[in-house]
Amino acid sequence: MIKAGIIGSTGYAGQEIVRILLGHKDAEIKWYGSRSYIDKEYASVFANMFELVPDICRGEDLNALCEEVDVVFTATPQGLCSTLVNEEVLSKIKIIDLSADFRIKDVETYESWYGIRHGSPEFIEEAVYGLCEINREKIKTARLVANPGCYPTCSFLSIYPLARAGLIDMKSIIIDAKSGTSGAGRGAKVANLFCEVNESIKAYGVASHRHTPEIEEQLSYASGQETIINFTPHLVPMNRGILVTAYADVTREVSQEELRSLYEEAYRGEQFVRVLKNGLCPETRWVEGSNYTDVNVKYDPRTRRVIMMGAMDNLVKGAAGQAVQNMNLMFGLPENTGLMMPPVFP
Amino acid sequence: MIKAGIIGSTGYAGQEIVRILLGHKDAEIKWYGSRSYIDKEYASVFANMFELVPDICRGEDLNALCEEVDVVFTATPQGLCSTLVNEEVLSKIKIIDLSADFRIKDVETYESWYGIRHGSPEFIEEAVYGLCEINREKIKTARLVANPGCYPTCSFLSIYPLARAGLIDMKSIIIDAKSGTSGAGRGAKVANLFCEVNESIKAYGVASHRHTPEIEEQLSYASGQETIINFTPHLVPMNRGILVTAYADVTREVSQEELRSLYEEAYRGEQFVRVLKNGLCPETRWVEGSNYTDVNVKYDPRTRRVIMMGAMDNLVKGAAGQAVQNMNLMFGLPENTGLMMPPVFP
Amino acid sequence: MIKAGIIGSTGYAGQEIVRILLGHKDAEIKWYGSRSYIDKEYASVFANMFELVPDICRGEDLNALCEEVDVVFTATPQGLCSTLVNEEVLSKIKIIDLSADFRIKDVETYESWYGIRHGSPEFIEEAVYGLCEINREKIKTARLVANPGCYPTCSFLSIYPLARAGLIDMKSIIIDAKSGTSGAGRGAKVANLFCEVNESIKAYGVASHRHTPEIEEQLSYASGQETIINFTPHLVPMNRGILVTAYADVTREVSQEELRSLYEEAYRGEQFVRVLKNGLCPETRWVEGSNYTDVNVKYDPRTRRVIMMGAMDNLVKGAAGQAVQNMNLMFGLPENTGLMMPPVFP
Amino acid sequence: MIKAGIIGSTGYAGQEIVRILLGHKDAEIKWYGSRSYIDKEYASVFANMFELVPDICRGEDLNALCEEVDVVFTATPQGLCSTLVNEEVLSKIKIIDLSADFRIKDVETYESWYGIRHGSPEFIEEAVYGLCEINREKIKTARLVANPGCYPTCSFLSIYPLARAGLIDMKSIIIDAKSGTSGAGRGAKVANLFCEVNESIKAYGVASHRHTPEIEEQLSYASGQETIINFTPHLVPMNRGILVTAYADVTREVSQEELRSLYEEAYRGEQFVRVLKNGLCPETRWVEGSNYTDVNVKYDPRTRRVIMMGAMDNLVKGAAGQAVQNMNLMFGLPENTGLMMPPVFP
Repeated sequence: MIKAGIIGSTGYAGQEIVRILLGHKDAEIKWYGSRSYIDKEYASVFANMFELVPDICRGEDLNALCEEVDVVFTATPQGLCSTLVNEEVLSKIKIIDLSADFRIKDVETYESWYGIRHGSPEFIEEAVYGLCEINREKIKTARLVANPGCYPTCSFLSIYPLARAGLIDMKSIIIDAKSGTSGAGRGAKVANLFCEVNESIKAYGVASHRHTPEIEEQLSYASGQETIINFTPHLVPMNRGILVTAYADVTREVSQEELRSLYEEAYRGEQFVRVLKNGLCPETRWVEGSNYTDVNVKYDPRTRRVIMMGAMDNLVKGAAGQAVQNMNLMFGLPENTGLMMPPVFP
Repeated sequence: MIKAGIIGSTGYAGQEIVRILLGHKDAEIKWYGSRSYIDKEYASVFANMFELVPDICRGEDLNALCEEVDVVFTATPQGLCSTLVNEEVLSKIKIIDLSADFRIKDVETYESWYGIRHGSPEFIEEAVYGLCEINREKIKTARLVANPGCYPTCSFLSIYPLARAGLIDMKSIIIDAKSGTSGAGRGAKVANLFCEVNESIKAYGVASHRHTPEIEEQLSYASGQETIINFTPHLVPMNRGILVTAYADVTREVSQEELRSLYEEAYRGEQFVRVLKNGLCPETRWVEGSNYTDVNVKYDPRTRRVIMMGAMDNLVKGAAGQAVQNMNLMFGLPENTGLMMPPVFP
Repeated sequence: MIKAGIIGSTGYAGQEIVRILLGHKDAEIKWYGSRSYIDKEYASVFANMFELVPDICRGEDLNALCEEVDVVFTATPQGLCSTLVNEEVLSKIKIIDLSADFRIKDVETYESWYGIRHGSPEFIEEAVYGLCEINREKIKTARLVANPGCYPTCSFLSIYPLARAGLIDMKSIIIDAKSGTSGAGRGAKVANLFCEVNESIKAYGVASHRHTPEIEEQLSYASGQETIINFTPHLVPMNRGILVTAYADVTREVSQEELRSLYEEAYRGEQFVRVLKNGLCPETRWVEGSNYTDVNVKYDPRTRRVIMMGAMDNLVKGAAGQAVQNMNLMFGLPENTGLMMPPVFP
Repeated sequence: MIKAGIIGSTGYAGQEIVRILLGHKDAEIKWYGSRSYIDKEYASVFANMFELVPDICRGEDLNALCEEVDVVFTATPQGLCSTLVNEEVLSKIKIIDLSADFRIKDVETYESWYGIRHGSPEFIEEAVYGLCEINREKIKTARLVANPGCYPTCSFLSIYPLARAGLIDMKSIIIDAKSGTSGAGRGAKVANLFCEVNESIKAYGVASHRHTPEIEEQLSYASGQETIINFTPHLVPMNRGILVTAYADVTREVSQEELRSLYEEAYRGEQFVRVLKNGLCPETRWVEGSNYTDVNVKYDPRTRRVIMMGAMDNLVKGAAGQAVQNMNLMFGLPENTGLMMPPVFP
């Protein structure tokens, strides 16, 4: 039985790790870390956990945590994890970091986009980018996994088959993404009040969102080419879900059939990526609550562009689900352990 | 392994049975019945089931079904199940009827409120009302279970502890209930379009809703007294969830502490009914996707009335979850098999 | 041209006064008061007002305000207005107070339910309760109007015809009310975040909500009898709208026709109260953005109770619209000036 | 007083024309046309109009209509208006067609994208494309106005300043649009039920939506160059609103300041197009219920692309509001008559 600790268990992503691990037969949570709710009952913060989680919230003392657990999930704002990690910690426990601290290999890029100094650049090289479908083997032996961002996961999985096939111009990619509001976190801000979000849609972080370099880096690896993208996220009046609509110029004449065969080939055997039937568009309602990403592609012969689409639950495959998928790989368990819940509809 | 068939698998409740049974280790679905989508892939009707359910929708031929399954769930409009049931069928399979056909013991009451003739009144007596927390022992040996209505389940569980204690005037009860829109079914009606439901709330079926006699009958059994209620359902712009706010006059002086102890006593050992801490009100967000009903009670000394409250997911404990709970009891399985999913929030 | 000032113009109710007065041909806003956004452009707080309101937010200096305006709307938390009012102020300007400070005639009741000391009890007697349909004549000559609460307005208008006719037992009334989230204000609280409110419904303030004594007082006046009620508000995942479902025992045999004729009689000639056709239930979608309250009644012969129903936009007739209606009366204008906007649907 | 008739008054766009004309001092509705609700009270179809509209729905007999009105709005599916129009009709009344029948000058393009034969191609040349900000002078003398589509209006206004300045490559434009559900109409379809739309977002009509050639044609006029675009609409869980996020390559080095000055210049003096302050993104919540389109632009020096953004109420500026704006122009009224309602928030 894997003993797990969660730093940041009282945010939306942290709570989703709790929900998933409660149904995981080989793991148990030993530490519910929180900054704001320390010494309070976890179930008083998230009442869905009443009678399921009797625990009290604890702090973020990583040294103490190391003595009690085998793995720590850090579901915290940027900058925290990199200040906590050190060789002694990593010699005792595995870390799955849901923040951006170890996702970007170039520390200057990280510091420039995030506007903070990195707390432990010496571990960036070791950290494995935890996109399971791509880095499965490296994850299995990792001590420190950088769990991918929600937008990057959905964007990358939507584009990957054509990027690695060399079929799209890697400087022509435009990603127009839409996210449910849980992605904005549980902080008390006027902009995230019900009456401000409901009955509205807006773009934000236009040409400046921090997930941009993360997506570019991963697509560069996949394609072997420098990748520069436009990435525009939007806030949608719904709780969960990310939808990606991505556009790119093709590099040569191509047919709809060939495009689809590249998707099918890229994700053959992948349980958590579903290539939809030809003509169907991903919709977030069909993946809610599950670890699936649904993808599809459409060729537009008028413009010689492809439209690449993906839908995902931002809290599951975009955060907690993928983190547990990483944990399974790191501990030698079947990758889908605890992750077989079907999407909840409606 | 229990072999299950579902008649009406392409409605919201039917689909929820599918979702739950996919995670049930001792049951498998052998028959996806449908009237509207016969011969179509089930996953083309509910795309969340893509790659999870490869089956094709079949019809409603109960005789054929009997040869392939051990239990049939009928998640269909009123009147169908009672025309299908007969002694031969019941000698071969067990039936869990999610319609109202066998919930009301007095056939005249049924026919008067539902406006249709009952197709097999000879089985009403045998049928067991499948409110597991109350009729557990009878359900274990039943061939035919009448799965309770969504409003009745939540109303009854909210009021039951005081009804059986004789503490409330059974002719003073007023139940003001609120339901998410999945309760209205998946039929294509203007009144249920997004733009008609969103940003609105309304009462419907005022003083005439068909769940009224069902609630009255069960509360009469619990209290040993004739019960006549006001029941007013409301349509709320959300997918899932039922909230009950019920009012009654107390029959004698009582304290908040005594009231709460009656709830705790009534539901001691019941996994799926959670008596919240004193002062907390049930909220549907904390039970979504789960089989829990959250209840609580508040005494108002100014008016000498109690306010009894309950929250539930109408598709789970109010339909599919309770149906599976009944199946577990009927087949001698642990009652919570396949039903341990924590509530999904947000 | 009436010169108006608004203290608390950067809350939802304050902003709604702005929206309405922008379309009012005989009034103009001279002072946009705010505590949090002082010196900021009003249109930077509410961007719907971009190019419509060029003004800068100012503070709450009532003495300065008095020199610039004819009427002040105080759309502020409880307790502020009563500390600002004095004889000199009232000799210069008229005040329409949207807080509860002057709604309740008994100062002890006010202080007990609101938990604060009243700042100027000497003006309570003079203040007129601004329910226009009831106190029209008194309002015309008032210096200080207590604009009714949102729940009280909708509750009172739903029950009034039967209360004044002596047809219902004034100690049997139960009011189950449902409100959109704008009623909770624009403060940054976790409980009002989109993901907390969306897909959920809950009761709050059970047996303790502060609007209770206000409703009781007004119904006592209408009926000439002591009135004690149960009042339970609920939070609904929508922006605007209040729905009231109220129950009471009848005091004598009565017919549906008689009940309806009492409503029609009570509201004959009232432009802003619409008595729906027999059998129709009020729905908030049909009044959004307008000053209408829709009401109807249903008799349940089984329980000898009436169900009285009302729907209203909480920000219009429940706050800003009624405030402007009061202003019109106080300044001798046609009562509906600036209030003729039809409901916005969908 | 202009006498107006509406064919298709019982759809969402038709009803919005009613709402707007009720507040229009120089127009009155004489004919509420409907196919589905003939002989029924208009207020029984849209209960917001109770006591505001006493009229009965009538049919679509254009000859009879011509005798009673000065102008007809056709808010009907594609293909109807073109079969009704003829020289005699146009000699008697003016027509504002909200369908696509007369929007596209090339009849083959129309017939190919819409899949129907055009009923009166001889009037296509005469018809004026009713984008008031662009074709104001022509509209003033038109007999037949083709009211622009919702997506085209918002897309065009977002892109127009750079298209006419020759600053963007007209074959590089990608328009990613998001619409509220009222754009899908009031037909009873499963796909538009509350539970299907709520908590989800999806693309539809990918690379095949019928508004594509309309946008291309208008942008070609504006730029003087052949324009080929990618246009992808998305369905958003909200009632109203369209948001456009459009991308294009710049044709030469350009600064953010220059871009913004082009927008300010293009819309100087235009009341219904608001160029937001630098750095702000349009949001649909700020335009709901009003005739405004909010636009802005952002330059991304990394990719040398511009992101052009617009927000609009699809039922107002995207349909009924623009139709009334056209009517005002055609009848020599001030263009903003009846259209001064501020956006309704929240």
